[in-house]
Amino acid sequence: MTSQPETVQSNGRHYAKPQAPVVVVCVDGCEPDYITQAIQAGAAPYLKRMLAQGSSLLGDCVIPSFTNPNNVSIVTGVPPSVHGICGNYFYDEAADREVMMNSPEYLRAPTLLSAFANAGALVAAVTAKDKLRTLLGHGLKGICFSAEKADKATVAECGIDKVLELVGKPVPSVYSADLSEFVFAAGVRLLETRKPDLMYLSTTDYVQHKCAPGTPEANAFYAMMDGYLAKLDALGAVIALTADHGMSPKTDAAGNPRVLYLQQELDALLGEASTRVILPITDPYVVHHGALGSFATVHANRAPLDQVRAVLCNLPGVEQVLTRDEAVQRFELAGDRIGDLIVIGDHLTVLGTSALRHDLTGLTVPLRSHGGVSEQKVPLLFNRPLRGVAPGRRLRNFDVFDLALNHASATL
Amino acid sequence: MTSQPETVQSNGRHYAKPQAPVVVVCVDGCEPDYITQAIQAGAAPYLKRMLAQGSSLLGDCVIPSFTNPNNVSIVTGVPPSVHGICGNYFYDEAADREVMMNSPEYLRAPTLLSAFANAGALVAAVTAKDKLRTLLGHGLKGICFSAEKADKATVAECGIDKVLELVGKPVPSVYSADLSEFVFAAGVRLLETRKPDLMYLSTTDYVQHKCAPGTPEANAFYAMMDGYLAKLDALGAVIALTADHGMSPKTDAAGNPRVLYLQQELDALLGEASTRVILPITDPYVVHHGALGSFATVHANRAPLDQVRAVLCNLPGVEQVLTRDEAVQRFELAGDRIGDLIVIGDHLTVLGTSALRHDLTGLTVPLRSHGGVSEQKVPLLFNRPLRGVAPGRRLRNFDVFDLALNHASATL
Repeated sequence: MTSQPETVQSNGRHYAKPQAPVVVVCVDGCEPDYITQAIQAGAAPYLKRMLAQGSSLLGDCVIPSFTNPNNVSIVTGVPPSVHGICGNYFYDEAADREVMMNSPEYLRAPTLLSAFANAGALVAAVTAKDKLRTLLGHGLKGICFSAEKADKATVAECGIDKVLELVGKPVPSVYSADLSEFVFAAGVRLLETRKPDLMYLSTTDYVQHKCAPGTPEANAFYAMMDGYLAKLDALGAVIALTADHGMSPKTDAAGNPRVLYLQQELDALLGEASTRVILPITDPYVVHHGALGSFATVHANRAPLDQVRAVLCNLPGVEQVLTRDEAVQRFELAGDRIGDLIVIGDHLTVLGTSALRHDLTGLTVPLRSHGGVSEQKVPLLFNRPLRGVAPGRRLRNFDVFDLALNHASATL
Repeated sequence: MTSQPETVQSNGRHYAKPQAPVVVVCVDGCEPDYITQAIQAGAAPYLKRMLAQGSSLLGDCVIPSFTNPNNVSIVTGVPPSVHGICGNYFYDEAADREVMMNSPEYLRAPTLLSAFANAGALVAAVTAKDKLRTLLGHGLKGICFSAEKADKATVAECGIDKVLELVGKPVPSVYSADLSEFVFAAGVRLLETRKPDLMYLSTTDYVQHKCAPGTPEANAFYAMMDGYLAKLDALGAVIALTADHGMSPKTDAAGNPRVLYLQQELDALLGEASTRVILPITDPYVVHHGALGSFATVHANRAPLDQVRAVLCNLPGVEQVLTRDEAVQRFELAGDRIGDLIVIGDHLTVLGTSALRHDLTGLTVPLRSHGGVSEQKVPLLFNRPLRGVAPGRRLRNFDVFDLALNHASATL
């Protein structure tokens, strides 16, 4: 890359070109305590060493603390107000229909991954689920595939084929820890064989939805991850690790889910069809959380906004209710893709529509979920010391590429 | 108790006299997930059965989510605005001194335990630490002793002597899980030998400050507790279990404590001695948390209140700042025993004064603490179904005697 410019610009931010391969890992649902507890239990010897020599910070993810808005924020370096993805779903009032935002046509900003590729860098992105691949890979002239559909990857679509052969593993089940392991294994093999300048690895939170930090199953997941991170480090990578969001139990002490069914409550108190509740966590993969998160948006329709807000504020389990303008201001959301109000549940409460519309039979263990402010704090970890980060700067998970490329020392 | 009135009144609330022995347990620092995870791990078979047949609810503790304000709220049935104990410390502006509130002279309301004893019931209270005994036992004509000083109990002072003989255990270390085990063991022996009508057992959070829910050490604690609860149940007790507060990790992912040193920040930004920060968690037992919790009060002294508030609101790690009036309104605090402002840290941040004034050498494991709104949700568990609890009622931990005496069925 000697003849190319020293920095790459994307969405108003400047990123230095990497001197060594840079690997940014987004560990889905990685509440910081998962790592703390894994280190405590002796399950993550590499992470322990990495953080003793490198950097450990916390950052704020974007609200709603869901997967898509945060992965897109990370790869664009900007919040949903700029890139437009503030959930999996929104309600298009003009067209009177609920719209899924899983496809790139809803993306309002290019990714920094595509900017680096356009500037001549070899860029690779591996996601666990295929739903993210099309968003993250939008416009990317490089390698981009999902573990879920690793066997379907073609050079034309994904910049690579024969992925199963490369990784030496079969296609994993979409509901398994193996799906994330495949992502790490692929990252290591890509670094060994293709030597990308910039790589983004994004896992799935199947394990985190089921297992609390420090439990044997959670520690096993982080031990697996630890082994692959050690390999990436041994291959000379600058590693940066963050999360799309945290994870909290959403149950009482007995393990019963604590669900506040908002549509049901609003229908009873204000009349049917007077409001419309949208749960932007809803997507085709809901078995492990029953489409229950701690964030909802509400369209007031035929009810006075103040009245809807007052009703919502009084419901036990509601932590805060903001108007569209307040939400746009506070959480940098795209105002045209949220309702008149946003509702955030408390740290032990998830928000549903109506009991009949949520299938909880898939919940074989006590519900753990995310979406609220209680899941906003995420790790920002680097296997290098950071230099020149302004004290008092509010760090975000979508600063991870800035920190890795502009502030992590290329050498220890 | 046939000739006595059917209800006992205390601080404006009415409590039915127990038909069977009622045991209320306050498990210090019992974040609900400790119980969920212990049940999941198979470590709490009695609790699993108890909650399948009885009742599992969550309630809000009082803020600050510290031990003394909450234990006192539980045994008085009223918030700090009535009983006056809103921390371990307050700053007496008139006398210009910091005052410890560990003794009963600061108590502004009698306990319901003393009211029951006065009405002829045999009442027993056992605390882990002696600091609580004098507050909880104030005015109580019954049995009241601490595990910490079990060997010092006399009939004159504690209504009982030869406690070690009764329990068959030595005096435990004040920093140990044994201190809490002694409380449970004493409860079982008291129920076997003295048959109190009403018993209050209050443990210490030594284990919860050190171990996350679901870890082997935490599960071992709850397995111990589970065994004693099963014995109390077998002896025919109506069991009600709650907590004084929850517990959160207060570290980054590497396990480093996240401390915001408020006095240091305010001194630097507003000038030395322009404000005074009080940490009401401070008490003589600070080894396991370094006197670091997520709540502080600030006296503005010579700085304009608006300016102090603005400075505090901008500090990373601060979740909310309220004026005295707002705090009295929102959290039912005693306005004369808090500062001009109260400050609440976010769920991963504790508030200190200055780095030099906190000894963190006792923190052998990643810091876990409490004090904020993030530790407000606590279990309310009963080995009986509850009847007649109004739907939508906001439950508090200090409703536990009301729920046990007025709403739990005497028989299954």
